[in-house]
Amino acid sequence: MTTHSSDQVSVLGLGAMGSALAGALVKAGHPTTVWNRTPGKADAIVALGAESAATAEDAVRASRLVIACLLDHASVLEVLGPLSAELAGRTLVNVTTTAPAQSRELAAWAADAGVAYLDGGIMAVPDMIGRPGSSVLYSGSAEVFDRHKPLLDLWGDSAYFGEDAGLASLFDLALLAGMYVMFAGFLHGAAMVAPEGVTASAFAERAAPWLAAMTGGFQGFAAVVDGGDYTVEGQQSLGFSSLDDLIAATSGQGISTEVVDMVQRLIRRQIDAGHGEEGFARIIESIRQPAH
Amino acid sequence: MTTHSSDQVSVLGLGAMGSALAGALVKAGHPTTVWNRTPGKADAIVALGAESAATAEDAVRASRLVIACLLDHASVLEVLGPLSAELAGRTLVNVTTTAPAQSRELAAWAADAGVAYLDGGIMAVPDMIGRPGSSVLYSGSAEVFDRHKPLLDLWGDSAYFGEDAGLASLFDLALLAGMYVMFAGFLHGAAMVAPEGVTASAFAERAAPWLAAMTGGFQGFAAVVDGGDYTVEGQQSLGFSSLDDLIAATSGQGISTEVVDMVQRLIRRQIDAGHGEEGFARIIESIRQPAH
Repeated sequence: MTTHSSDQVSVLGLGAMGSALAGALVKAGHPTTVWNRTPGKADAIVALGAESAATAEDAVRASRLVIACLLDHASVLEVLGPLSAELAGRTLVNVTTTAPAQSRELAAWAADAGVAYLDGGIMAVPDMIGRPGSSVLYSGSAEVFDRHKPLLDLWGDSAYFGEDAGLASLFDLALLAGMYVMFAGFLHGAAMVAPEGVTASAFAERAAPWLAAMTGGFQGFAAVVDGGDYTVEGQQSLGFSSLDDLIAATSGQGISTEVVDMVQRLIRRQIDAGHGEEGFARIIESIRQPAH
Repeated sequence: MTTHSSDQVSVLGLGAMGSALAGALVKAGHPTTVWNRTPGKADAIVALGAESAATAEDAVRASRLVIACLLDHASVLEVLGPLSAELAGRTLVNVTTTAPAQSRELAAWAADAGVAYLDGGIMAVPDMIGRPGSSVLYSGSAEVFDRHKPLLDLWGDSAYFGEDAGLASLFDLALLAGMYVMFAGFLHGAAMVAPEGVTASAFAERAAPWLAAMTGGFQGFAAVVDGGDYTVEGQQSLGFSSLDDLIAATSGQGISTEVVDMVQRLIRRQIDAGHGEEGFARIIESIRQPAH
């Protein structure tokens, strides 16, 4: 049996993301009960037609399906820990950003409490919820995912990764890592050109399409990594990829080299180990084997 | 007077990139003379219709327009340094990857030798030359750029940055910095999910559209950076961006944290300086002011 738009849902946590999730449910016609630790945050969503619960316990009692979108893992434990009796027999979808180990801990706690548990990682900013480009990664109970997929799809493209509740969080964090690192690379580039009077906006105008186009290289690197042979033809070699010129030009602009030094260290360790003629993708081996 | 497809061009350097550039000229009908230090590399391009010169001097003498696409700055000096007399009165477009200071040095040398000089930075891999998505950045002589724009456009979208011959190289390196850093971020993410049996290809399938979409955030960061006020509303704060969970999850996978540590250090320095409530774009201040 899948969810119907007449099914009652409760949303715990009304930060920017929780409000966006609850808003999408209300707009789709779900009777929605919301709760937030600090009151007042519910006003906007109540104006759309949601009910505001006075306590988290009241919110949990209101629906068979409970969505948690709280600040962090500690908040989830603090709010839901005392409510295991009330949650028993219900379904918990936790989209709070948590580490894989924390998601697994919650899944174990939920199993003990008789709560069906699905863990989610949201790959979108609040404004994107329910719009093209938004996706949410899930792992944990396949039964919960299948049953509620129509509801979950209200937020974005829903993808299921497996029964291990930590997998979605891990994928989420791995994608966020890529994002934060890319942002640092963009801001490094903007800092490099700034001394010549180039605005960050002018740099962004070229950097955004350039880096978007360069994501087209990921599958090539991935094929080499998965193949396990870094000597296959047609790759840019590590020796050719040495960032000496880039680092010298960075220094020449009077700014920190630490962003590009990070990549250079990964390259150097492979060159020093005798792999200079092999492909750039081999820097993943520097990441896999921490330096001591 | 702009270039015509009947104009003779010489290309020095037939690595993968030089060959792609020469190939585009030949296909467009330009009588093209090519030269490479190690012979044999010219065979493919000669088969397309180019002439092969026995020496760099012969190649320079063959055309009023000389393109240099050599290994690095040292190769340019080595090949062209002894040919200043032959180059006098001709035009040199140097698309060898060089640092800004090296481009400026060549521009000064060319000015002394009576050579019209344009410096270029190619934002494409050889396979992309002449196809959509390829762009080449130029700076140096505006007159050379204007005159030869139809020819330069055979390689990709041509953009001119100004008379300072170092500007194109600087922009090129700043964009390459963004690319290498993004690649490291992608490979970090692939290394994070690998212990759970997720292939790099499966990760790339999600990471490529995700990071391409996230380049949409650059203009927002740029507006904040250019505005100079990191407290404007609607930004994700540095405090919220702390990467503690990400770093803990990375360690939990038994891999190196150095890729994400780099970003965390940039964030930390701003938080430690009392800016934790300000926006993420403020990490550019950590890059602008090297730590000592």
